[in-house]
Amino acid sequence: MTEKSRSYVHGRSEKETTRLFDQASGLGFLLHEGTCYPVGSTILEAGCGVGAQTRLLSRNNPLAHFVSIDISAESLVRAREQVSGEGLTNVTFRQADIGNLPFRQGSFDHVFVCFTLEHIPDPLRALCRLKNVLRPGGTITVIEGDHGSALFYPETIAAHHVIDCLVSLQRQAGGNALIGRELGHFLAEAGFVDITVSPRQTYASPAIPGSSEAVKRIFIAMIEGIREPAIAEGLTSVKDWDQGIRDLYRTTEKDGMFCYTFFKAVGRKEGNDTG
Amino acid sequence: MTEKSRSYVHGRSEKETTRLFDQASGLGFLLHEGTCYPVGSTILEAGCGVGAQTRLLSRNNPLAHFVSIDISAESLVRAREQVSGEGLTNVTFRQADIGNLPFRQGSFDHVFVCFTLEHIPDPLRALCRLKNVLRPGGTITVIEGDHGSALFYPETIAAHHVIDCLVSLQRQAGGNALIGRELGHFLAEAGFVDITVSPRQTYASPAIPGSSEAVKRIFIAMIEGIREPAIAEGLTSVKDWDQGIRDLYRTTEKDGMFCYTFFKAVGRKEGNDTG
Repeated sequence: MTEKSRSYVHGRSEKETTRLFDQASGLGFLLHEGTCYPVGSTILEAGCGVGAQTRLLSRNNPLAHFVSIDISAESLVRAREQVSGEGLTNVTFRQADIGNLPFRQGSFDHVFVCFTLEHIPDPLRALCRLKNVLRPGGTITVIEGDHGSALFYPETIAAHHVIDCLVSLQRQAGGNALIGRELGHFLAEAGFVDITVSPRQTYASPAIPGSSEAVKRIFIAMIEGIREPAIAEGLTSVKDWDQGIRDLYRTTEKDGMFCYTFFKAVGRKEGNDTG
Repeated sequence: MTEKSRSYVHGRSEKETTRLFDQASGLGFLLHEGTCYPVGSTILEAGCGVGAQTRLLSRNNPLAHFVSIDISAESLVRAREQVSGEGLTNVTFRQADIGNLPFRQGSFDHVFVCFTLEHIPDPLRALCRLKNVLRPGGTITVIEGDHGSALFYPETIAAHHVIDCLVSLQRQAGGNALIGRELGHFLAEAGFVDITVSPRQTYASPAIPGSSEAVKRIFIAMIEGIREPAIAEGLTSVKDWDQGIRDLYRTTEKDGMFCYTFFKAVGRKEGNDTG
Protein backbone atom coordinates (compact mmCIF):
# COMPACT_ATOMS: atom_id res chain seq x y z
CA MET A 1 0.00 0.00 0.00
CA THR A 2 1.48 3.38 -0.92
CA GLU A 3 1.50 6.42 1.36
CA LYS A 4 -1.01 8.01 -0.96
CA SER A 5 -3.50 5.20 -0.77
CA ARG A 6 -3.04 4.89 2.99
CA SER A 7 -4.20 8.50 3.45
CA TYR A 8 -7.62 7.72 1.93
CA VAL A 9 -9.85 9.39 4.51
CA HIS A 10 -12.61 6.79 4.60
CA GLY A 11 -10.29 3.83 5.06
CA ARG A 12 -10.70 0.49 3.28
CA SER A 13 -12.52 -1.64 5.83
CA GLU A 14 -15.13 -4.27 5.05
CA LYS A 15 -17.69 -1.96 6.65
CA GLU A 16 -16.65 0.95 4.42
CA THR A 17 -16.92 -1.28 1.34
CA THR A 18 -20.46 -2.23 2.37
CA ARG A 19 -21.23 1.46 2.86
CA LEU A 20 -19.94 2.32 -0.62
CA PHE A 21 -22.14 -0.32 -2.24
CA ASP A 22 -25.13 0.83 -0.18
CA GLN A 23 -24.43 4.36 -1.34
CA ALA A 24 -24.16 3.38 -4.99
CA SER A 25 -27.35 1.29 -4.87
CA GLY A 26 -29.36 3.81 -2.90
CA LEU A 27 -28.29 6.75 -5.01
CA GLY A 28 -27.93 4.94 -8.31
CA PHE A 29 -30.80 6.60 -10.10
CA LEU A 30 -30.22 10.02 -8.59
CA LEU A 31 -26.59 10.11 -9.67
CA HIS A 32 -26.47 8.00 -12.85
CA GLU A 33 -29.63 9.39 -14.46
CA GLY A 34 -28.53 10.92 -17.76
CA THR A 35 -25.29 8.97 -17.98
CA CYS A 36 -25.76 6.87 -21.09
CA TYR A 37 -22.85 5.91 -23.32
CA PRO A 38 -23.10 5.00 -27.02
CA VAL A 39 -22.75 1.40 -28.17
CA GLY A 40 -19.13 0.53 -28.75
CA SER A 41 -17.68 3.52 -26.93
CA THR A 42 -14.76 3.19 -24.53
CA ILE A 43 -14.98 4.97 -21.20
CA LEU A 44 -12.28 5.60 -18.64
CA GLU A 45 -13.58 5.36 -15.09
CA ALA A 46 -10.94 7.18 -13.06
CA GLY A 47 -10.87 6.18 -9.41
CA CYS A 48 -13.19 3.18 -9.38
CA GLY A 49 -12.34 2.16 -5.81
CA VAL A 50 -14.12 -1.05 -4.83
CA GLY A 51 -16.28 -0.88 -7.96
CA ALA A 52 -19.46 0.48 -6.41
CA GLN A 53 -20.13 2.82 -9.36
CA THR A 54 -18.46 0.50 -11.88
CA ARG A 55 -21.20 -2.04 -11.37
CA LEU A 56 -23.88 0.54 -12.20
CA LEU A 57 -21.98 1.93 -15.20
CA SER A 58 -21.45 -1.59 -16.55
CA ARG A 59 -25.07 -2.64 -16.05
CA ASN A 60 -26.54 0.58 -17.45
CA ASN A 61 -24.31 0.56 -20.53
CA PRO A 62 -23.87 -3.13 -21.46
CA LEU A 63 -22.67 -2.37 -25.00
CA ALA A 64 -20.01 0.13 -23.98
CA HIS A 65 -16.60 -0.85 -22.63
CA PHE A 66 -15.13 0.50 -19.42
CA VAL A 67 -11.52 0.81 -18.38
CA SER A 68 -11.70 1.28 -14.62
CA ILE A 69 -8.57 2.38 -12.83
CA ASP A 70 -7.65 2.90 -9.21
CA ILE A 71 -4.45 3.61 -7.34
CA SER A 72 -5.21 0.92 -4.74
CA ALA A 73 -4.52 -2.70 -5.68
CA GLU A 74 -6.53 -3.72 -2.61
CA SER A 75 -9.63 -1.90 -3.86
CA LEU A 76 -9.20 -3.33 -7.35
CA VAL A 77 -9.31 -6.88 -5.98
CA ARG A 78 -12.72 -6.16 -4.48
CA ALA A 79 -13.89 -4.34 -7.62
CA ARG A 80 -12.92 -7.29 -9.84
CA GLU A 81 -14.66 -9.76 -7.53
CA GLN A 82 -17.80 -7.67 -7.47
CA VAL A 83 -18.07 -7.13 -11.20
CA SER A 84 -17.13 -10.64 -12.29
CA GLY A 85 -19.36 -12.07 -9.55
CA GLU A 86 -22.29 -10.42 -11.28
CA GLY A 87 -21.29 -11.78 -14.68
CA LEU A 88 -20.48 -8.35 -16.07
CA THR A 89 -17.85 -8.64 -18.79
CA ASN A 90 -17.50 -5.13 -20.22
CA VAL A 91 -14.99 -3.80 -17.69
CA THR A 92 -11.19 -3.96 -17.74
CA PHE A 93 -9.58 -3.11 -14.41
CA ARG A 94 -6.10 -1.65 -14.19
CA GLN A 95 -4.02 -0.27 -11.36
CA ALA A 96 -3.05 3.27 -12.26
CA ASP A 97 -2.58 6.73 -10.79
CA ILE A 98 -4.53 9.68 -12.24
CA GLY A 99 -1.30 11.64 -11.77
CA ASN A 100 0.49 9.35 -14.21
CA LEU A 101 -2.00 7.85 -16.62
CA PRO A 102 -0.63 4.92 -18.68
CA PHE A 103 -2.73 5.79 -21.74
CA ARG A 104 -2.04 7.61 -25.01
CA GLN A 105 -3.54 10.99 -25.76
CA GLY A 106 -7.13 10.72 -27.01
CA SER A 107 -7.52 7.05 -25.98
CA PHE A 108 -11.04 7.37 -24.57
CA ASP A 109 -14.40 8.41 -25.95
CA HIS A 110 -15.59 9.49 -22.51
CA VAL A 111 -14.35 9.86 -18.96
CA PHE A 112 -16.33 9.21 -15.78
CA VAL A 113 -15.17 10.31 -12.31
CA CYS A 114 -17.22 9.81 -9.15
CA PHE A 115 -16.22 10.55 -5.54
CA THR A 116 -12.57 10.74 -6.59
CA LEU A 117 -11.65 14.41 -7.13
CA GLU A 118 -12.61 15.06 -3.49
CA HIS A 119 -9.56 13.02 -2.44
CA ILE A 120 -7.03 14.55 -4.85
CA PRO A 121 -4.78 17.43 -3.76
CA ASP A 122 -4.84 19.13 -7.18
CA PRO A 123 -8.16 18.39 -8.90
CA LEU A 124 -7.52 20.88 -11.70
CA ARG A 125 -4.32 19.11 -12.70
CA ALA A 126 -6.14 15.78 -12.54
CA LEU A 127 -8.87 17.09 -14.85
CA CYS A 128 -6.27 18.36 -17.32
CA ARG A 129 -4.64 14.93 -17.36
CA LEU A 130 -7.97 13.23 -17.88
CA LYS A 131 -8.74 15.67 -20.70
CA ASN A 132 -5.51 14.69 -22.34
CA VAL A 133 -6.49 11.02 -22.64
CA LEU A 134 -9.97 12.00 -23.86
CA ARG A 135 -10.56 12.27 -27.63
CA PRO A 136 -11.70 15.62 -29.08
CA GLY A 137 -15.50 15.84 -28.81
CA GLY A 138 -15.61 13.35 -25.92
CA THR A 139 -17.28 14.10 -22.62
CA ILE A 140 -16.26 14.03 -18.99
CA THR A 141 -18.79 13.36 -16.23
CA VAL A 142 -17.81 14.25 -12.68
CA ILE A 143 -19.95 13.47 -9.64
CA GLU A 144 -19.01 14.67 -6.17
CA GLY A 145 -20.76 15.33 -2.88
CA ASP A 146 -20.43 18.47 -0.78
CA HIS A 147 -20.67 18.03 2.98
CA GLY A 148 -21.52 21.72 3.36
CA SER A 149 -24.86 20.88 1.75
CA ALA A 150 -26.02 18.78 4.70
CA LEU A 151 -29.22 20.41 5.94
CA PHE A 152 -31.06 18.78 8.79
CA TYR A 153 -33.55 19.11 11.59
CA PRO A 154 -33.12 19.31 14.49
CA GLU A 155 -29.99 21.33 13.73
CA THR A 156 -27.34 21.31 16.44
CA ILE A 157 -23.80 22.62 16.74
CA ALA A 158 -22.63 19.17 17.83
CA ALA A 159 -24.00 17.56 14.65
CA HIS A 160 -22.25 20.13 12.46
CA HIS A 161 -19.09 19.58 14.51
CA VAL A 162 -18.76 15.89 13.63
CA ILE A 163 -19.33 16.66 9.93
CA ASP A 164 -16.69 19.40 10.18
CA CYS A 165 -14.28 16.83 11.63
CA LEU A 166 -14.52 14.82 8.40
CA VAL A 167 -14.07 17.99 6.33
CA SER A 168 -10.92 18.85 8.33
CA LEU A 169 -9.52 15.33 8.23
CA GLN A 170 -10.07 15.12 4.49
CA ARG A 171 -8.34 18.49 4.04
CA GLN A 172 -5.39 17.22 6.10
CA ALA A 173 -5.19 14.25 3.73
CA GLY A 174 -5.03 16.68 0.78
CA GLY A 175 -8.68 16.38 -0.23
CA ASN A 176 -11.72 18.64 -0.26
CA ALA A 177 -15.04 17.42 1.11
CA LEU A 178 -16.71 20.62 -0.16
CA ILE A 179 -15.69 20.13 -3.77
CA GLY A 180 -19.18 19.53 -5.22
CA ARG A 181 -19.92 23.24 -5.49
CA GLU A 182 -16.67 23.79 -7.39
CA LEU A 183 -17.13 21.33 -10.24
CA GLY A 184 -18.38 23.95 -12.69
CA HIS A 185 -15.40 26.25 -12.41
CA PHE A 186 -12.91 23.35 -12.33
CA LEU A 187 -14.24 21.96 -15.61
CA ALA A 188 -14.14 25.46 -17.13
CA GLU A 189 -10.57 26.06 -15.96
CA ALA A 190 -9.51 22.69 -17.34
CA GLY A 191 -10.75 23.93 -20.72
CA PHE A 192 -13.88 21.82 -21.14
CA VAL A 193 -16.79 23.37 -23.03
CA ASP A 194 -20.61 22.94 -23.05
CA ILE A 195 -20.46 22.50 -19.29
CA THR A 196 -23.62 21.71 -17.37
CA VAL A 197 -23.86 21.31 -13.61
CA SER A 198 -26.86 19.69 -11.98
CA PRO A 199 -27.21 19.60 -8.22
CA ARG A 200 -28.93 16.39 -7.15
CA GLN A 201 -30.50 16.71 -3.77
CA THR A 202 -31.74 13.97 -1.48
CA TYR A 203 -34.50 14.53 1.07
CA ALA A 204 -35.00 12.06 3.89
CA SER A 205 -37.51 11.92 6.69
CA PRO A 206 -39.08 9.16 8.80
CA ALA A 207 -42.25 9.74 6.76
CA ILE A 208 -40.54 8.52 3.57
CA PRO A 209 -40.02 4.75 3.82
CA GLY A 210 -36.35 3.77 3.74
CA SER A 211 -35.01 7.28 3.42
CA SER A 212 -33.87 7.76 7.00
CA GLU A 213 -32.36 4.27 6.95
CA ALA A 214 -30.31 5.39 3.93
CA VAL A 215 -29.07 8.44 5.83
CA LYS A 216 -27.87 6.13 8.60
CA ARG A 217 -26.23 3.59 6.29
CA ILE A 218 -24.64 6.11 3.91
CA PHE A 219 -24.03 9.46 5.57
CA ILE A 220 -23.88 8.80 9.30
CA ALA A 221 -21.87 5.60 8.75
CA MET A 222 -19.36 7.67 6.73
CA ILE A 223 -18.99 10.13 9.59
CA GLU A 224 -18.76 7.33 12.17
CA GLY A 225 -15.98 5.81 10.10
CA ILE A 226 -13.57 8.61 11.06
CA ARG A 227 -14.22 8.56 14.83
CA GLU A 228 -10.81 7.20 15.74
CA PRO A 229 -8.61 9.44 13.56
CA ALA A 230 -10.73 12.50 14.47
CA ILE A 231 -10.12 11.85 18.17
CA ALA A 232 -6.47 10.87 17.59
CA GLU A 233 -5.82 14.08 15.62
CA GLY A 234 -7.34 16.13 18.44
CA LEU A 235 -10.15 17.44 16.25
CA THR A 236 -12.77 16.39 18.78
CA SER A 237 -13.29 14.88 22.22
CA VAL A 238 -15.07 11.59 22.90
CA LYS A 239 -17.90 13.54 24.54
CA ASP A 240 -18.40 16.04 21.68
CA TRP A 241 -18.09 13.27 19.12
CA ASP A 242 -20.66 11.04 20.75
CA GLN A 243 -23.07 13.96 21.17
CA GLY A 244 -22.71 14.90 17.50
CA ILE A 245 -23.36 11.36 16.34
CA ARG A 246 -26.40 11.09 18.60
CA ASP A 247 -27.67 14.37 17.14
CA LEU A 248 -27.19 13.08 13.59
CA TYR A 249 -29.19 9.94 14.43
CA ARG A 250 -31.88 12.18 15.91
CA THR A 251 -32.42 13.74 12.45
CA THR A 252 -33.60 10.31 11.27
CA GLU A 253 -36.27 10.03 13.99
CA LYS A 254 -39.66 11.56 14.85
CA ASP A 255 -39.92 15.05 13.33
CA GLY A 256 -36.40 14.95 11.89
CA MET A 257 -35.23 15.42 8.31
CA PHE A 258 -31.95 15.29 6.41
CA CYS A 259 -31.01 16.76 3.01
CA TYR A 260 -27.78 16.38 1.08
CA THR A 261 -26.76 17.62 -2.34
CA PHE A 262 -24.51 15.87 -4.85
CA PHE A 263 -23.24 17.77 -7.86
CA LYS A 264 -22.99 16.21 -11.31
CA ALA A 265 -21.05 18.13 -13.93
CA VAL A 266 -20.61 17.23 -17.58
CA GLY A 267 -18.21 18.92 -19.99
CA ARG A 268 -16.96 18.26 -23.49
CA LYS A 269 -13.46 18.41 -24.94
CA GLU A 270 -13.45 20.75 -27.89
CA GLY A 271 -13.11 19.28 -31.35
CA ASN A 272 -15.05 17.08 -33.76
CA ASP A 273 -17.34 14.54 -32.24
CA THR A 274 -16.17 11.41 -34.01
CA GLY A 275 -17.59 8.95 -31.50
CA MET B 1 -49.96 49.78 10.92
CA THR B 2 -50.12 47.33 13.80
CA GLU B 3 -47.18 46.34 15.97
CA LYS B 4 -47.31 42.96 14.34
CA SER B 5 -47.09 44.25 10.82
CA ARG B 6 -44.37 46.70 11.78
CA SER B 7 -42.12 43.88 12.89
CA TYR B 8 -42.10 42.34 9.37
CA VAL B 9 -38.39 41.73 8.99
CA HIS B 10 -38.04 42.68 5.34
CA GLY B 11 -39.85 46.03 5.68
CA ARG B 12 -42.32 47.36 3.11
CA SER B 13 -40.22 49.67 0.95
CA GLU B 14 -40.69 50.22 -2.77
CA LYS B 15 -37.37 48.42 -3.26
CA GLU B 16 -38.56 45.41 -1.24
CA THR B 17 -41.76 45.27 -3.30
CA THR B 18 -39.69 45.20 -6.49
CA ARG B 19 -37.58 42.45 -4.97
CA LEU B 20 -40.64 40.38 -4.13
CA PHE B 21 -41.95 40.62 -7.70
CA ASP B 22 -38.49 39.78 -9.08
CA GLN B 23 -38.44 36.77 -6.78
CA ALA B 24 -41.89 35.60 -7.83
CA SER B 25 -41.13 36.02 -11.55
CA GLY B 26 -37.67 34.48 -11.38
CA LEU B 27 -38.77 31.54 -9.30
CA GLY B 28 -42.30 31.18 -10.67
CA PHE B 29 -41.82 27.89 -12.43
CA LEU B 30 -39.57 26.39 -9.77
CA LEU B 31 -42.06 27.08 -6.98
CA HIS B 32 -45.48 26.92 -8.68
CA GLU B 33 -44.84 23.82 -10.79
CA GLY B 34 -47.43 21.27 -9.72
CA THR B 35 -49.80 23.81 -8.20
CA CYS B 36 -52.90 23.48 -10.35
CA TYR B 37 -56.39 24.04 -8.95
CA PRO B 38 -59.59 22.58 -10.39
CA VAL B 39 -62.03 24.76 -12.33
CA GLY B 40 -64.45 26.46 -9.99
CA SER B 41 -62.50 25.78 -6.81
CA THR B 42 -62.01 28.43 -4.16
CA ILE B 43 -58.55 28.86 -2.68
CA LEU B 44 -57.46 30.82 0.36
CA GLU B 45 -54.09 32.46 -0.13
CA ALA B 46 -52.96 33.22 3.41
CA GLY B 47 -50.42 36.04 3.63
CA CYS B 48 -50.48 37.40 0.09
CA GLY B 49 -48.34 40.45 0.92
CA VAL B 50 -47.95 42.72 -2.12
CA GLY B 51 -49.45 40.05 -4.39
CA ALA B 52 -46.25 38.71 -5.89
CA GLN B 53 -47.45 35.09 -5.72
CA THR B 54 -51.13 36.04 -6.15
CA ARG B 55 -50.42 37.18 -9.68
CA LEU B 56 -48.93 33.81 -10.58
CA LEU B 57 -51.68 31.83 -8.86
CA SER B 58 -54.33 33.89 -10.65
CA ARG B 59 -52.68 33.59 -14.08
CA ASN B 60 -51.95 29.87 -13.76
CA ASN B 61 -55.48 29.02 -12.54
CA PRO B 62 -57.79 31.41 -14.42
CA LEU B 63 -60.91 29.34 -13.73
CA ALA B 64 -60.35 29.05 -9.98
CA HIS B 65 -61.16 31.80 -7.50
CA PHE B 66 -58.71 33.13 -4.92
CA VAL B 67 -59.40 34.84 -1.62
CA SER B 68 -56.09 36.48 -0.78
CA ILE B 69 -55.64 37.83 2.72
CA ASP B 70 -52.93 39.78 4.45
CA ILE B 71 -52.58 41.48 7.81
CA SER B 72 -51.15 44.65 6.22
CA ALA B 73 -53.58 47.10 4.58
CA GLU B 74 -50.58 48.79 2.99
CA SER B 75 -49.50 45.57 1.26
CA LEU B 76 -53.06 44.87 0.12
CA VAL B 77 -53.22 48.23 -1.67
CA ARG B 78 -50.21 47.23 -3.72
CA ALA B 79 -51.53 43.72 -4.28
CA ARG B 80 -54.87 45.05 -5.59
CA GLU B 81 -53.12 47.51 -7.92
CA GLN B 82 -50.87 44.80 -9.25
CA VAL B 83 -53.56 42.24 -9.92
CA SER B 84 -56.19 44.58 -11.32
CA GLY B 85 -53.50 46.34 -13.37
CA GLU B 86 -52.96 43.06 -15.18
CA GLY B 87 -56.66 42.57 -15.81
CA LEU B 88 -56.86 39.56 -13.51
CA THR B 89 -60.37 39.25 -12.07
CA ASN B 90 -60.38 35.98 -10.13
CA VAL B 91 -58.97 37.34 -6.87
CA THR B 92 -60.79 38.84 -3.88
CA PHE B 93 -58.52 40.65 -1.45
CA ARG B 94 -59.35 41.00 2.21
CA GLN B 95 -57.49 42.33 5.22
CA ALA B 96 -57.32 39.56 7.80
CA ASP B 97 -55.04 37.95 10.36
CA ILE B 98 -54.23 34.23 10.13
CA GLY B 99 -54.58 34.25 13.92
CA ASN B 100 -58.23 35.28 13.65
CA LEU B 101 -59.62 34.11 10.32
CA PRO B 102 -63.01 35.65 9.41
CA PHE B 103 -64.22 32.53 7.59
CA ARG B 104 -66.48 29.64 8.54
CA GLN B 105 -65.14 26.15 9.03
CA GLY B 106 -64.63 24.33 5.73
CA SER B 107 -65.00 27.47 3.57
CA PHE B 108 -62.18 26.69 1.17
CA ASP B 109 -61.38 23.89 -1.25
CA HIS B 110 -57.66 24.55 -0.93
CA VAL B 111 -55.20 26.71 0.97
CA PHE B 112 -51.97 28.21 -0.38
CA VAL B 113 -49.29 29.73 1.85
CA CYS B 114 -45.99 31.08 0.53
CA PHE B 115 -43.23 32.90 2.45
CA THR B 116 -45.66 33.53 5.31
CA LEU B 117 -45.12 30.85 7.99
CA GLU B 118 -41.50 32.02 8.27
CA HIS B 119 -42.80 35.25 9.82
CA ILE B 120 -45.32 33.72 12.25
CA PRO B 121 -44.36 33.01 15.89
CA ASP B 122 -46.49 29.86 16.09
CA PRO B 123 -46.65 28.22 12.66
CA LEU B 124 -48.28 25.06 14.02
CA ARG B 125 -51.20 27.01 15.45
CA ALA B 126 -51.49 28.92 12.15
CA LEU B 127 -51.64 25.63 10.22
CA CYS B 128 -54.34 24.30 12.55
CA ARG B 129 -56.41 27.44 11.96
CA LEU B 130 -55.94 27.17 8.22
CA LYS B 131 -56.96 23.51 8.39
CA ASN B 132 -60.12 24.54 10.16
CA VAL B 133 -61.30 26.73 7.26
CA LEU B 134 -60.35 24.02 4.74
CA ARG B 135 -63.01 21.51 3.67
CA PRO B 136 -62.43 17.81 4.30
CA GLY B 137 -60.43 16.39 1.40
CA GLY B 138 -58.98 19.78 0.51
CA THR B 139 -55.25 20.43 0.21
CA ILE B 140 -52.82 22.86 1.72
CA THR B 141 -49.69 23.94 -0.16
CA VAL B 142 -46.92 25.60 1.81
CA ILE B 143 -43.78 27.06 0.25
CA GLU B 144 -40.94 28.44 2.35
CA GLY B 145 -37.25 29.13 1.94
CA ASP B 146 -34.51 28.08 4.35
CA HIS B 147 -31.52 30.38 4.65
CA GLY B 148 -29.46 27.54 6.07
CA SER B 149 -29.58 26.01 2.59
CA ALA B 150 -27.45 28.77 1.06
CA LEU B 151 -24.38 27.03 -0.39
CA PHE B 152 -21.85 29.13 -2.22
CA TYR B 153 -18.33 29.50 -3.51
CA PRO B 154 -16.11 31.11 -2.48
CA GLU B 155 -17.36 30.36 1.02
CA THR B 156 -16.37 32.86 3.70
CA ILE B 157 -17.23 33.36 7.35
CA ALA B 158 -18.19 36.98 6.59
CA ALA B 159 -20.75 35.92 3.98
CA HIS B 160 -22.34 33.44 6.39
CA HIS B 161 -22.31 36.17 9.05
CA VAL B 162 -24.57 38.56 7.11
CA ILE B 163 -27.00 35.73 6.35
CA ASP B 164 -26.97 34.81 10.05
CA CYS B 165 -27.85 38.43 10.86
CA LEU B 166 -31.11 38.04 8.93
CA VAL B 167 -31.80 34.72 10.64
CA SER B 168 -31.26 36.38 14.05
CA LEU B 169 -33.32 39.46 13.24
CA GLN B 170 -36.17 37.33 11.94
CA ARG B 171 -36.03 35.21 15.12
CA GLN B 172 -36.18 38.41 17.22
CA ALA B 173 -39.31 39.37 15.27
CA GLY B 174 -40.85 36.00 16.15
CA GLY B 175 -40.13 34.32 12.83
CA ASN B 176 -37.95 31.48 11.61
CA ALA B 177 -35.81 31.89 8.50
CA LEU B 178 -34.88 28.19 8.68
CA ILE B 179 -38.46 26.93 8.54
CA GLY B 180 -38.27 25.30 5.09
CA ARG B 181 -36.76 22.09 6.47
CA GLU B 182 -39.57 21.86 9.03
CA LEU B 183 -42.60 21.94 6.75
CA GLY B 184 -43.02 18.18 6.70
CA HIS B 185 -43.29 17.72 10.44
CA PHE B 186 -45.44 20.84 10.89
CA LEU B 187 -48.01 19.57 8.38
CA ALA B 188 -47.97 16.17 10.10
CA GLU B 189 -48.40 17.70 13.57
CA ALA B 190 -51.27 19.84 12.29
CA GLY B 191 -52.98 16.59 11.31
CA PHE B 192 -52.71 16.76 7.53
CA VAL B 193 -52.34 13.47 5.66
CA ASP B 194 -50.80 12.37 2.32
CA ILE B 195 -47.96 14.81 2.93
CA THR B 196 -45.29 15.29 0.30
CA VAL B 197 -42.30 17.57 0.64
CA SER B 198 -40.23 18.56 -2.37
CA PRO B 199 -37.05 20.56 -1.96
CA ARG B 200 -36.63 22.91 -4.93
CA GLN B 201 -33.06 23.95 -5.37
CA THR B 202 -31.67 26.79 -7.44
CA TYR B 203 -28.14 26.73 -8.86
CA ALA B 204 -26.57 29.95 -10.09
CA SER B 205 -23.20 30.66 -11.67
CA PRO B 206 -21.82 33.30 -14.03
CA ALA B 207 -21.82 30.57 -16.70
CA ILE B 208 -25.64 30.34 -16.61
CA PRO B 209 -27.08 33.49 -18.22
CA GLY B 210 -29.17 35.54 -15.80
CA SER B 211 -28.72 33.25 -12.83
CA SER B 212 -26.15 35.29 -10.94
CA GLU B 213 -28.18 38.44 -11.65
CA ALA B 214 -31.14 36.70 -9.98
CA VAL B 215 -29.02 35.94 -6.90
CA LYS B 216 -28.18 39.65 -6.66
CA ARG B 217 -31.74 40.88 -7.19
CA ILE B 218 -33.43 38.29 -4.99
CA PHE B 219 -31.13 36.94 -2.30
CA ILE B 220 -28.41 39.53 -1.81
CA ALA B 221 -30.96 42.38 -2.07
CA MET B 222 -32.96 40.68 0.71
CA ILE B 223 -29.88 40.54 2.95
CA GLU B 224 -28.93 44.14 2.08
CA GLY B 225 -32.45 45.19 3.09
CA ILE B 226 -31.70 44.52 6.77
CA ARG B 227 -28.38 46.38 6.95
CA GLU B 228 -29.68 49.19 9.16
CA PRO B 229 -31.60 47.15 11.74
CA ALA B 230 -28.78 44.56 11.90
CA ILE B 231 -26.29 47.31 12.75
CA ALA B 232 -28.76 49.10 15.05
CA GLU B 233 -29.44 45.87 16.97
CA GLY B 234 -25.72 45.32 17.44
CA LEU B 235 -25.73 42.07 15.44
CA THR B 236 -22.88 43.28 13.24
CA SER B 237 -20.41 46.11 12.64
CA VAL B 238 -20.30 48.26 9.53
CA LYS B 239 -16.99 46.67 8.63
CA ASP B 240 -18.12 43.06 9.05
CA TRP B 241 -21.38 43.80 7.26
CA ASP B 242 -19.73 45.38 4.26
CA GLN B 243 -17.22 42.54 4.00
CA GLY B 244 -20.00 39.96 4.11
CA ILE B 245 -21.99 41.71 1.40
CA ARG B 246 -18.87 42.00 -0.78
CA ASP B 247 -18.26 38.29 -0.28
CA LEU B 248 -21.83 37.46 -1.30
CA TYR B 249 -21.43 39.51 -4.49
CA ARG B 250 -18.18 37.68 -5.14
CA THR B 251 -20.15 34.40 -5.40
CA THR B 252 -21.86 35.87 -8.49
CA GLU B 253 -18.57 36.57 -10.26
CA LYS B 254 -15.77 34.64 -12.02
CA ASP B 255 -15.57 31.10 -10.59
CA GLY B 256 -18.37 31.72 -8.08
CA MET B 257 -21.62 29.82 -7.56
CA PHE B 258 -24.67 30.08 -5.34
CA CYS B 259 -27.31 27.47 -4.43
CA TYR B 260 -30.48 27.90 -2.40
CA THR B 261 -33.26 25.46 -1.54
CA PHE B 262 -36.94 26.22 -1.19
CA PHE B 263 -39.25 23.62 0.31
CA LYS B 264 -42.73 22.96 -1.03
CA ALA B 265 -45.02 20.81 1.10
CA VAL B 266 -48.51 19.63 0.24
CA GLY B 267 -50.92 17.96 2.64
CA ARG B 268 -54.57 16.96 2.61
CA LYS B 269 -57.24 17.36 5.25
CA GLU B 270 -58.76 13.99 5.97
CA GLY B 271 -62.27 13.34 4.76
CA ASN B 272 -64.15 12.87 1.53
CA ASP B 273 -62.83 14.71 -1.47
CA THR B 274 -65.96 16.53 -2.59
CA GLY B 275 -64.14 19.22 -4.63
